[in-house]
Parts: sequence; structure tokens; C-alpha cells
Amino acid sequence: MLPRRGARRSSAPRIAAERAALSGVREFDLIARIRARIEQAASRDDVVLGIGDDAAALRVPEGRLLVVATDTLNAGVHFPSETAPADIGWKALAVNLSDLAAMGATPAWCTLSLSMPAADPAWLDAFLDGFLELATPHRVALVGGDTTRGPLSVCVTVHGFAEPHRLLRRDGARIGDDVWVSGTLGDAAGALRQWRAGRERDPALRARLDRPVPRTVLGVALRGIAHAAIDVSDGLLADLGHACRASGVGAEVNVDALPASPALRAAFDDEPRITLQATGGDDYELCFTAPAGMRDAVAAAAREAGVAATTIGRIVAGREVRVLRADGRACEVAGPAGHVHFD
Amino acid sequence: MLPRRGARRSSAPRIAAERAALSGVREFDLIARIRARIEQAASRDDVVLGIGDDAAALRVPEGRLLVVATDTLNAGVHFPSETAPADIGWKALAVNLSDLAAMGATPAWCTLSLSMPAADPAWLDAFLDGFLELATPHRVALVGGDTTRGPLSVCVTVHGFAEPHRLLRRDGARIGDDVWVSGTLGDAAGALRQWRAGRERDPALRARLDRPVPRTVLGVALRGIAHAAIDVSDGLLADLGHACRASGVGAEVNVDALPASPALRAAFDDEPRITLQATGGDDYELCFTAPAGMRDAVAAAAREAGVAATTIGRIVAGREVRVLRADGRACEVAGPAGHVHFD
Repeated sequence: MLPRRGARRSSAPRIAAERAALSGVREFDLIARIRARIEQAASRDDVVLGIGDDAAALRVPEGRLLVVATDTLNAGVHFPSETAPADIGWKALAVNLSDLAAMGATPAWCTLSLSMPAADPAWLDAFLDGFLELATPHRVALVGGDTTRGPLSVCVTVHGFAEPHRLLRRDGARIGDDVWVSGTLGDAAGALRQWRAGRERDPALRARLDRPVPRTVLGVALRGIAHAAIDVSDGLLADLGHACRASGVGAEVNVDALPASPALRAAFDDEPRITLQATGGDDYELCFTAPAGMRDAVAAAAREAGVAATTIGRIVAGREVRVLRADGRACEVAGPAGHVHFD
Repeated sequence: MLPRRGARRSSAPRIAAERAALSGVREFDLIARIRARIEQAASRDDVVLGIGDDAAALRVPEGRLLVVATDTLNAGVHFPSETAPADIGWKALAVNLSDLAAMGATPAWCTLSLSMPAADPAWLDAFLDGFLELATPHRVALVGGDTTRGPLSVCVTVHGFAEPHRLLRRDGARIGDDVWVSGTLGDAAGALRQWRAGRERDPALRARLDRPVPRTVLGVALRGIAHAAIDVSDGLLADLGHACRASGVGAEVNVDALPASPALRAAFDDEPRITLQATGGDDYELCFTAPAGMRDAVAAAAREAGVAATTIGRIVAGREVRVLRADGRACEVAGPAGHVHFD
């Protein structure tokens, strides 16, 4: 918290706190703005102390584990710069809630660190619209954070609860498990491909890119059913690869079984569509494994969550994720490379 | 997590996970690097699941509150760009631990979101050196986070524990309380002033700017003694003003009583020095209030923490922070303006 002050400090030898003639809005005004919005939103009894002190004080239910995830979205890296502020607000929370869903955790609280190039109350209000539109139905309380000057960047840390021994971990996949995926795959990557190509954008695809829906209810319902789970943020093959590596197993995936939305089928031919589904990131669906004896239980959990669940393959011995067509023919597949930020 | 992938995605209609020819280091390699360093550091029994899954799973002791703070440091805003990576690592954690100290909380875990313009393993190693140099003696476990491409920015979220009803809040100051401050004030602002003026830098001052020491032991020792506490990040008058506002009281501060280090006295004349002490930010000392009957208890807590504690004023009726000289003369003082990020 350094160079931002000195420029306005008088060199005259007098004792005076700085009262700069401000042309913009001060950090504290933005925090007050956030705080006012938050206090109108649903409150939680387990928040002893929220925004406004040096830190938040929170009550974790006895016998529950605290589950914590954090993810940062940077403008131009994690979302196109043209993205509407409300969509950025939604997505910054959604990607974090998705991590909790993949653990089978029930969300509770979050903090928000927001770096903005300039104080823009209208932008902040729109951002909070989208943020709260997702936070409120999930009963997620915003309990702290900071606003700073800097290139647009949003860091959210989210907290939830889970029962010990019922965590959905990455490393629990067992040979013989079915591999499942929720919802449909490839929509977000399809929207991104359209955006990059300057093509007309399909609103249904774009909504999947801008407003991913974390599979919170499904994640909680899968506790005690699924052996392993991960959210599809890097792309199905990459993320399934992470889970296989953590579990010391391999997998076979039938790419012709990957669930596709009508919008994706309408917008892309089969081959590019399947590529998008198998390798495109940002779907935030859950990929999970469960024993064959749990098929009815998985179907019931999916019904409870109001989302489809599709079997797309199985866990096998080995270390690789092998990709097959419906006729059993192997495809050319480079191993899942995962998300690459630096290149 | 969008535009970073499409550029490398083949437009050929074949099913292939991306395996880009990477010129740099992948996100996952950086995470593996962080993870390897962390696993060499002290572990904690209450970390059920650390780095490597979708989220961390943690055990909060029964009967304790979870205390959570988050702060982001942006290059060129919160630290000079020339700052050594080890100092950035130290400071990113220190400013967060300071928030916990101001609540009287015992630190436990943290997450780290690191945005870097390019993957630089040497930079990361040096950053982690400084980070762990502070984390290890505080027994703070790094349990999760992410690394992304973007302008250099470090977001840390820190978690600790506190006993209910023994939190040090901002809003507990009462009329008649002594106002105290730990350590010395103005060193960090003095270093910044030297840096901005291109003057020869005093290493003792510069160390206070680059490596602030969170007053963790003092904060914990003050539970049950202090009525209110806040850390001095924005400047003494500004931060005391925040506490007064939250408490609905005013304060009188004797600026001639503000504790100064020998280095600061040597580097600045009295008047500019006092200005630095009263209004300079980044000291990360604790400012707290306690009833006069607790003076011996405060002194004992300070001895336990190995840091000085100095009475600098008292809490009075009203809303203002009034600044006095030792002879009781009032000074020209603009009300504490607080930290100003946007202007």
C-alpha cells in the first residue's frame, strides 16, 4: 500500500492527515457500496462479524469440515474484455462454487478481492447484480474482501461445509467404476470459438460461457455415491486425466456418448463438436466416477438436482485416458494437457 | 478461462486434446512447484486435504470461531515494481496476518492466488522463500490457490481461530480508554519517501516497508484486555478514525508521544517525521484501546510479545480524532482521509 499516497503528501513540515482533493471515488466508498448491497441480501446466522472489521468471524457447524476454494479471473485471460460486468460477477463466484460442488460441499461464505483500473460505481453495481444473483439462491454470504486499484481482476475465496469421510475427492476412482458427466459439454467452448471467429453468437451457448451453473445440489447429493469427482474447467479429458492421475488409474471414454446440447449440435458439425466436448474448458459440469451398482442412486441424485447425468466411459487399469468411438475404434488423442496459462 | 486456449486449438476436425508445444512452463508445473515446497514446510494435523484437489478440507477446533481476512497486493500500486520477489512473498502474507492479529486470532491456514505476466520458476522460488519465511514460524499452512497469467498480483486469504466473546473488534472502544500503539510508527512511510525522492535508503527503514512484522503474539495476548483494536495499514490517524467511527466515539492523540525508531529520527527532522508517524501507512502495528486499569496487563502482554506498547492518547466523547502536541496545543489536522486507491 505504497506509492498511491506519497504523491499527494505535502512536503511542507506540518502535521496533517491527507485529505486529497478527490476526483473519483475512494476505496472506502466502494466498500460501503458493497456493504450496503450485501446487507440487503440474505444474511446468515453463522456470520458473527461480516464486512467492516479487520477480518470476518464465522461459525463452522460442529462436526463439519471447512472446505475452501479460491480462483482468480483476469480480464483478457479468463474472460473476453467485452464481457458484461454482471456476467463477470456471476462467473467469478460460479467457478468457485463449482469447486465446492466437486467436493460435495455445501457453500456458506465468500470473500471478494476486486482490482479495478478506476473506481466506477456503475460498473460495480452491475458486477454485484450478477454476483448476488448467484450468491443469494446459494445462500452464500459475502463476508469480507478488499477493493484496490489495478488491472481488472477478481479473486473470490469461497467456504463451505462437508461431512468428514463423505468428501468427494479426486483420488477415489476405482477400476470398474462408471465415468459420468452432468449436463452437456462443449457449449462454453463453442461460444468461445464463435466469439473468436467473429461468427454470429448463439445466445444459448454464450449463456453457458458467461453464466456457468455450479452443480451444487448434484455434488451434495453424490456424497456417499460417487467415488471421485472433479469439475470440468480445463476440459473433460484434461480433468478426467487429473482425477485418474490422483487415483492411480486409467479411463476409457466413449466420445460419441458425450452429452451435447441442441444448440451445440445446431452450431457445429459432428467432428468439431466432439472435439469441443472432449477438450473444451469452462463447462463447470461435474465429472465423477461411481460403481456400477450405484447407477440408480446416481440417476436419483441427478433427478434431485434437476440436471442430466450421462455415463461416458469407465475406469480401467493403467494411467491413460483412452478415447474411443461408439464402435470401439480408438481415436487419435494426445494425452490431456490440462489448462495452459503461460505460453 | 477462455481466450488462452482457442488460439492453439486446431481447426481440423479431429478429436485431440490440446498438447501445445509449450515454450514456457505450464500452470500445473508451477502448482507442482508450490506444492513440493509446501510439503517440505511444517504440516498441520487439521489439514485433511491440502493443495491438489478442487478445494481444501480443514478442521476448525470445536468452540472456536473461524476468522478470515483477504488482501491483494498489486505491483506498482501496493509495492514498488523493483521490490524483491522474496519481499513480495513475505509482505503478501504479512498484511493478512496483521488483520488476524488485529482480531486477536491465531493464524492457521491460507490460500494464495498468484497472477504473473509469465511463468518464471526462479521468481516463484524467491517469492516462496519470503512467503515461507513468514508462514513457517507462524505455523500457517498454504492449503490451496491458483496461478494464472496476468499483471503481477498476489491475493492471499488467511484463516485463523478465535474464542467467541474474546474477539478484538474495531467497535469496542469506550470513552476513557487509553489509546495504545505497538512498536514504532512511520518507518515504512519514511522508506517510501526516501524511495520516491531517490534518496539514499536507510536499510532499517526499508526493512520495515518490505518486511512488516505482524503483531500476532500481541494480538492474541490482548484478548480480554483491549476493548478495540485495528492494524495500522492506512496510517495511524486514518485507522484510529475507523475504530472511532465504528465505536461511536472520538479520540485525542498526542503526536509528540508517537513512538519513533532511531532510524527514523536520524533520517528526518521532527516535523516531517511526526507527519510520517501520524499519517504514513504500511506500519502494520496494532492500535488498540484499553481501560486505564489495564495498563499493567497491556505492559505484560507487550513484554510477552517482545514489542513495545506506548500510550498515545485517549478515547473521548464525540466523533473526531483530535491531534494535540505535548503542551496541549491543537494542531492543524484534516480529518483522517483513509487510504485512497482511486483518484
